Amino acid sequence: MSSLAAFSTPREDRRFEDYRAGEVYEFPETASVSEEDIVRFAREFDPQYFHTDPAAAAGSPYKGLIASGAHTVALTFRMYVKNVLPGKASFGSPGMDEVRWLKPLRPGDTLRIRATILETRPSRARADRGTIGVFVETINQDGEVIMSYKATNIIAKRPESVR
Amino acid sequence: MSSLAAFSTPREDRRFEDYRAGEVYEFPETASVSEEDIVRFAREFDPQYFHTDPAAAAGSPYKGLIASGAHTVALTFRMYVKNVLPGKASFGSPGMDEVRWLKPLRPGDTLRIRATILETRPSRARADRGTIGVFVETINQDGEVIMSYKATNIIAKRPESVR
Repeated sequence: MSSLAAFSTPREDRRFEDYRAGEVYEFPETASVSEEDIVRFAREFDPQYFHTDPAAAAGSPYKGLIASGAHTVALTFRMYVKNVLPGKASFGSPGMDEVRWLKPLRPGDTLRIRATILETRPSRARADRGTIGVFVETINQDGEVIMSYKATNIIAKRPESVR
Repeated sequence: MSSLAAFSTPREDRRFEDYRAGEVYEFPETASVSEEDIVRFAREFDPQYFHTDPAAAAGSPYKGLIASGAHTVALTFRMYVKNVLPGKASFGSPGMDEVRWLKPLRPGDTLRIRATILETRPSRARADRGTIGVFVETINQDGEVIMSYKATNIIAKRPESVR
């Protein structure tokens, strides 16, 4: 754990300059899902039988109920937004790449995230902001990476560094 | 619209062989979101002020409340699962690529999807299935593509084509 970085600025004060390529962050916050959570999300957004029907899911290739990949993305976003992104200084995201669902998310699992800053790039067009590229891993209670993706976020610079 | 394809098999009977590279599908099904939907999803999964607080969002770069990108993904999954994927013959997805949030999703917007089959590839390791690559576009009521991504899905073959 000694190789992990920690943000020196609290979330609300964090700006583009606080992100440095190569730093790896983990956080104490976790997200857990119950069977009910998984079924509720999937009935609304991803009604495939292995996400919505525990009995039928037992006969699926997954041998049991698994969460929608969109649910894993959403839970990961929650942890990412609250721990990695700044508050008012976040200008949103143009996209994400290489989303990989590596292992199923099952009822009772507890997730955490690891965020590795891949790059930081000041905007050429707008002096008040920059883009960060982040490799995000979602990890279960057994230490298995169940999902990963590359996120891109646009973050405001500190006023004193804008010219 | 004459260039659009239509599946010849209903969803429950659809198999890997029913997908052909180059075909473009659109569907009558739509998804709409209210301000309440956007705020509810974002409070649970993406608590950034421009997703959760209409008044504060008015002062954001987006000049109003916009939906979480994860919400747009989830709504798109719903339409994709119900219109493009088969039922029991779906073996899930290893991932998606090049997710791009091109325009905001705002309260009152109505979405539909366009799915273009990019490739179909029989599995080398498992004779009973194949992989399809699909370019998915999420389109608003003004005909603007607000999100796109490339999806990968694993689909069972028809029994008679397995050997």
